[in-house]
Amino acid sequence: MNELKIAIAGLGVVGAGVIKGLLENADLMTARTGTKIRVVAVSSRDKNKDRGVDISPYAWYSDAREMVQNETYDVLVETIGGSDGIALDITRTALGMGKHVVTANKAMLAHHGHELGQTAEQQGVCLGYEPAVAGGIPIINAMNNGLTGNKITLIRGILNGTCNYILTTMREQGRDFADVLADAQKLGYAEADPTFDIEGIDAAHKLTLLTALGFGVNVDFDSITTEGITQIQTIDQQAVDALGYSIKLLGVARHLGDKITGRVSPVLIEKSDMLSTVEGVFNAVHVVGDYVGDSVLVGRGAGQEPTASAVIADICDIARIGGVGGSCKPAFGVPARDLVDIPVRPTAEHVGEYYIRLRMESDKVSGVTVSLGQHDIATKTTWTQTEPDGTVWVIVLTEQAVESHVTQACEALKKIDGVVENPYIIRIEKHH
Amino acid sequence: MNELKIAIAGLGVVGAGVIKGLLENADLMTARTGTKIRVVAVSSRDKNKDRGVDISPYAWYSDAREMVQNETYDVLVETIGGSDGIALDITRTALGMGKHVVTANKAMLAHHGHELGQTAEQQGVCLGYEPAVAGGIPIINAMNNGLTGNKITLIRGILNGTCNYILTTMREQGRDFADVLADAQKLGYAEADPTFDIEGIDAAHKLTLLTALGFGVNVDFDSITTEGITQIQTIDQQAVDALGYSIKLLGVARHLGDKITGRVSPVLIEKSDMLSTVEGVFNAVHVVGDYVGDSVLVGRGAGQEPTASAVIADICDIARIGGVGGSCKPAFGVPARDLVDIPVRPTAEHVGEYYIRLRMESDKVSGVTVSLGQHDIATKTTWTQTEPDGTVWVIVLTEQAVESHVTQACEALKKIDGVVENPYIIRIEKHH
Repeated sequence: MNELKIAIAGLGVVGAGVIKGLLENADLMTARTGTKIRVVAVSSRDKNKDRGVDISPYAWYSDAREMVQNETYDVLVETIGGSDGIALDITRTALGMGKHVVTANKAMLAHHGHELGQTAEQQGVCLGYEPAVAGGIPIINAMNNGLTGNKITLIRGILNGTCNYILTTMREQGRDFADVLADAQKLGYAEADPTFDIEGIDAAHKLTLLTALGFGVNVDFDSITTEGITQIQTIDQQAVDALGYSIKLLGVARHLGDKITGRVSPVLIEKSDMLSTVEGVFNAVHVVGDYVGDSVLVGRGAGQEPTASAVIADICDIARIGGVGGSCKPAFGVPARDLVDIPVRPTAEHVGEYYIRLRMESDKVSGVTVSLGQHDIATKTTWTQTEPDGTVWVIVLTEQAVESHVTQACEALKKIDGVVENPYIIRIEKHH
Repeated sequence: MNELKIAIAGLGVVGAGVIKGLLENADLMTARTGTKIRVVAVSSRDKNKDRGVDISPYAWYSDAREMVQNETYDVLVETIGGSDGIALDITRTALGMGKHVVTANKAMLAHHGHELGQTAEQQGVCLGYEPAVAGGIPIINAMNNGLTGNKITLIRGILNGTCNYILTTMREQGRDFADVLADAQKLGYAEADPTFDIEGIDAAHKLTLLTALGFGVNVDFDSITTEGITQIQTIDQQAVDALGYSIKLLGVARHLGDKITGRVSPVLIEKSDMLSTVEGVFNAVHVVGDYVGDSVLVGRGAGQEPTASAVIADICDIARIGGVGGSCKPAFGVPARDLVDIPVRPTAEHVGEYYIRLRMESDKVSGVTVSLGQHDIATKTTWTQTEPDGTVWVIVLTEQAVESHVTQACEALKKIDGVVENPYIIRIEKHH
């Protein structure tokens, strides 16, 4: 029987989960792939930390670079993380040596995916990154295989479980952002430094990869506009709920023919939108293809076992190919040389409806719609709530407008009489 | 460049859609697979019917058997349908000749999948059936690849768009079954003979395939218990809505360790269940794996373009393999010889909550819970509605009970005083 030797760099939650999964379901995977998948080596800084798995059967390296260069293996599983540094070094080295790589590292791929994909291709090896996007959801596999006959025109995703957990909890419990974030950190749903999650950067890394794969464009993190959820307040949750919407941090990328757009930001989606039912730490990706129509995948976006499931899926794919050769799919759907550059439409040109929230002195509320009207922003709905101090939250849903006009109108709003808290804008995202 | 020659048997909606898709997205597929995919021959009884595609470039056969035996091709796309007869003949012939087969024919596979999968394996060719299950949803691919590291313990699916459309419309418009069915037939959502759809047989064919693939068991249509939606009444829709549930025709299969269960039937699911938001002609499959946890895929379950998307996905998979050889995955996840027989637990042994509906004379309503109590069926909720003729619909939601006890209790209910319409039972399906 064929054997596939695995070297795992990094023994955090994911690395340990991969060992556990490969052991627990070993028979199943042998039956499904016709291959014995065997971990041969692991690397980590601390050998003696309790990880819930016995690592004594494996060659142990304190230096991942040493493992990658000196060990005999077929597949490197990279779970160290970070866009550069050691993760990038060992990935380059392993691919350059003609080894397959499976990585959970979206930051690295969002910044260096083009180069790494090209190297993998030249070497005839696979670069698997199912675990890098939306955890256990088999979205890379779906786009690369199940939907491969489709021109993809739209990708919308809840791609960060931390943000989705925070927004869900804020709404359900009426608590404010900072409070829920602190809780999420205690529960392990948010990192000690939560910047990448709450500022939308992690979701933007993932959207970068989905955009390249779906649209066949170069992997370009800078093409994604990114905005986090730190400005969302309890009042926003109350208002949107009353108005029939949910707030989600959504990654949205569109292929408009001659241009593409990509943005991660909080958005309002209608409660009837399937993504609005995706709550807590769950992730979801909605893809529209010219033949398949709407295709939605929902699942756990993080965590030891779902992420291990995705790593193992990529390993099994490699096992079935049966070694180094020409059967690996290009990392981003088409050969790297065929990835194209399509101009990015500036977000300022986006046309849609908007949610505008500001706080006013109670006798100055009517100034808001007057000012918006003077800037040709038509109001669809106004919703207000008076605070104990007598100030009034004014929420306006606009009719369709160009984003740059809305931004200008809100600049003007800051200067009208009676503003207590400056306007904050959220885009309303409709996909039909 | 490699070339892959396609012969299409049957030029109905799906066959024509495949031609359209392969032409429209030809460049994309060449880029993604490194192969030129070319239709070479088609077969159909009527050459001159307008199908919205020009078939003149292809060799034409009025007899699919003749095409399969005499034409030069790599992949047979079978879209004729029917569990036996010509579809089975040509599939056997093509596989026996070492040709790949892609089929949308769930009936054929549910009855002959084991044999056909085994032949494909012996010949080193692929038997693709993504289009046979849930239309455009890439669920076969997801289970075979993306979730392959998981022991699957639960499969729940809305697998028939016709039934889902009928149930959704009944609820939304308060119309009765026969009326909505007639409309669905006019709209093309239901066949002239709707038996396979409305009796749950089509969904059971699909669940048979998912069960084999997910659990690694023999393909055995007879292991699935099947019940249709013809007995659902307007009153059921009203009652379940008031009680916080939806009615769905669900295929549910469970791996219980030493036994499996498989059933297609109408069920009540909670409104908070993600599947309850899947409406109209959409399908959905919810899979639970030991590592990935909950994974849900939603999309269009039928129609020309979504089904063509699935056919083309299978064709592209074959294209990437680059010819006949050892790289085809076994049709049902593991080699046919490794598929096992696991005893089926009789549905009578199912333990759960139940919905019981009957119609009573108004002064005899209390007899219902008394009688149920005498048979040790505890009532959780009772909901009643009085009709203009003075009779009363009595709806009971039970506490957990064994299905055989519920059936016996309902037999006894038929004989109590004042029954106007006999009890009808729907299972309440909770997956947690």
